[in-house]
Amino acid sequence: MSDPAQRAGALLTVDLDAVVANWRRCQAVAQPARCAAVVKADAYGLGMAPVARVLAEAGCARFFVATIDEGIGLREVLPDREILVLNGPLPGTEADFLEHRLIPVLNAPGQLAGWAAFAAAAGRKLPAALHVDTGMARLGVELYDLWRLAADTAALAAIEVILVMSHLACADTPGHRLNHGQLSIFHTARSLFPGVEGSLAASSGLFLGADWLADWVRPGAALYGLQPTAAGPNPMLPVVRLEAKVLQLRDVDAGDTVGYGATHSITKDTRLATVAAGYADGIFRSLGNRGCGHLGEIEVPLVGRVSMDLIVFDVTEVPADRLQPGAVIELLGPHHTVDDMAKAAGTIGYEVLTALGNRYHRRYLGGAAP
Amino acid sequence: MSDPAQRAGALLTVDLDAVVANWRRCQAVAQPARCAAVVKADAYGLGMAPVARVLAEAGCARFFVATIDEGIGLREVLPDREILVLNGPLPGTEADFLEHRLIPVLNAPGQLAGWAAFAAAAGRKLPAALHVDTGMARLGVELYDLWRLAADTAALAAIEVILVMSHLACADTPGHRLNHGQLSIFHTARSLFPGVEGSLAASSGLFLGADWLADWVRPGAALYGLQPTAAGPNPMLPVVRLEAKVLQLRDVDAGDTVGYGATHSITKDTRLATVAAGYADGIFRSLGNRGCGHLGEIEVPLVGRVSMDLIVFDVTEVPADRLQPGAVIELLGPHHTVDDMAKAAGTIGYEVLTALGNRYHRRYLGGAAP
Repeated sequence: MSDPAQRAGALLTVDLDAVVANWRRCQAVAQPARCAAVVKADAYGLGMAPVARVLAEAGCARFFVATIDEGIGLREVLPDREILVLNGPLPGTEADFLEHRLIPVLNAPGQLAGWAAFAAAAGRKLPAALHVDTGMARLGVELYDLWRLAADTAALAAIEVILVMSHLACADTPGHRLNHGQLSIFHTARSLFPGVEGSLAASSGLFLGADWLADWVRPGAALYGLQPTAAGPNPMLPVVRLEAKVLQLRDVDAGDTVGYGATHSITKDTRLATVAAGYADGIFRSLGNRGCGHLGEIEVPLVGRVSMDLIVFDVTEVPADRLQPGAVIELLGPHHTVDDMAKAAGTIGYEVLTALGNRYHRRYLGGAAP
Repeated sequence: MSDPAQRAGALLTVDLDAVVANWRRCQAVAQPARCAAVVKADAYGLGMAPVARVLAEAGCARFFVATIDEGIGLREVLPDREILVLNGPLPGTEADFLEHRLIPVLNAPGQLAGWAAFAAAAGRKLPAALHVDTGMARLGVELYDLWRLAADTAALAAIEVILVMSHLACADTPGHRLNHGQLSIFHTARSLFPGVEGSLAASSGLFLGADWLADWVRPGAALYGLQPTAAGPNPMLPVVRLEAKVLQLRDVDAGDTVGYGATHSITKDTRLATVAAGYADGIFRSLGNRGCGHLGEIEVPLVGRVSMDLIVFDVTEVPADRLQPGAVIELLGPHHTVDDMAKAAGTIGYEVLTALGNRYHRRYLGGAAP
């Protein structure tokens, strides 16, 4: 059988050394706070196992996932690191946490009560993080619930609170009025659990300044190269490169149309390249007639609609000898970042990363232990 | 360990009996033409192996995939059915086709020449389908290339042409001028290969009328319940149900805001349900403040932005006793079809299906041999 890279229509390259460098950069910005790593959603689509492995080697001691199953999967990769599960226990799943040594983030009164009852029945004090909602209205207990818990000696005899955490709704907008309101409620919440560590900032929060750092920061997006800051150059290294192969080159005449719905009309003699990636690979349909690819420095516009398995570029400006069937066009990389593609698609880089598909041949660079 | 369905934040149910019924419906509409099945992109996100297995049991003799690796995977599931690979051979991968008995769709002069040379070197006549571009300008040889091939006795001694095919750009718009133009070019192409079977119609084309059916139709979307017709009731049965669990219920006051960017403002006392699915699961960010869920007949609006792992619904109208943490809200199903969600998200059902994520607990209904 041929080489998988030869058979694949598109190649996704993940630079693990860049992930580690980004984590170290976050750690440097955050210090003396400590830097955890968010590896939920398969490390934002880049592969939880290889990412978590290199970050653990680099010294990361605490990892966040969203779901129980992600936690169970990560425990197989990292036998000896702390794993916190952001969604907390669904009813009846408390025993899974104990079995796999996962620490639940408790977000609701029912989760608090369920974990306390489970710990009491198990006859031991079990660790948990407390997530207080400070204005996001998504997950997290109210300050009032936390106040009740702080006075509940039976519950506190069963739960070892290791972290009081919250999440900012507008950290990517440094001047947003909500930020300081959330910080203030967070301080109040922490005051109910003196001596317990706190965590508020994710990728963007960690660039808001020292007030926001508490004891632990928990970046995800920044580790994967997305820009965490609202303006200025991106302080993070790029991590992802996506290249798709040319299946066919075609010369078309003025008057022809391209793709489904004939949405792109050819106005002059044009050379088209049909490339083996489409919306089933996470190249959003919203990039139709708006996206672009690159051949070195040359930008080639995506023309017509994005198909399920194919996209078409106008490569008229590319010298003929630079492009043959089997050659690659850069979809993400140094000339067009994840954030750039997101902007063209009308979304954010987070969604571009998590939409990356299963059909790519994936290559990991770096990652050797230091 | 607990039941996977209990641990999962969301449940995806695929009705294989409905897939089979839809394939039979397509076969009935198409007859005397025969009905193949398109199972590329993991059967549009629903699982290539279980879908292909039940369709083969129902009598489907020919399957289409997009990529070589999909073909290799499908060959393991279906040892004795025809598998055609729409993207054709990438340079240097011809031997993979032979090894796994995959039939390439030849889309470009280079693919024609490569397959002919490979067959000649192998010393045997090898089957292939010819894809002629009739106006989509995406994949497919020009009529001129086909004419040259028809006169190339050496190539025809090496390639057994089993199918002349093309693809409609505007089949979902029955009156579109391009349709008849494509049909006319398709007839010309077929006339170059007398006695060889032809295929033009996919899901929508198969409802355009008898002129479009040729010898083989090749639906994908229609098998998976998407509406193939431009108007009227959907002739296909729904296939997919998606339910996500409530993690937390929250009562909020007028003046609060919800989610990232505080894009949804609460104007009266409101009950919110935070649910365990987000854009990493294919719930597009474009559904923020536009999507909905259902509890039985009650529609609940999605409020605020879609997060990576979470969405929030306004459940004020739902009686309190109908909703507890762990209960499910229907995201796709009888009250809200895939096409409905696509419309709310500004895309098509095809992209909704192929974006369905990896974190769902998947259940397959039906599929027993008849």
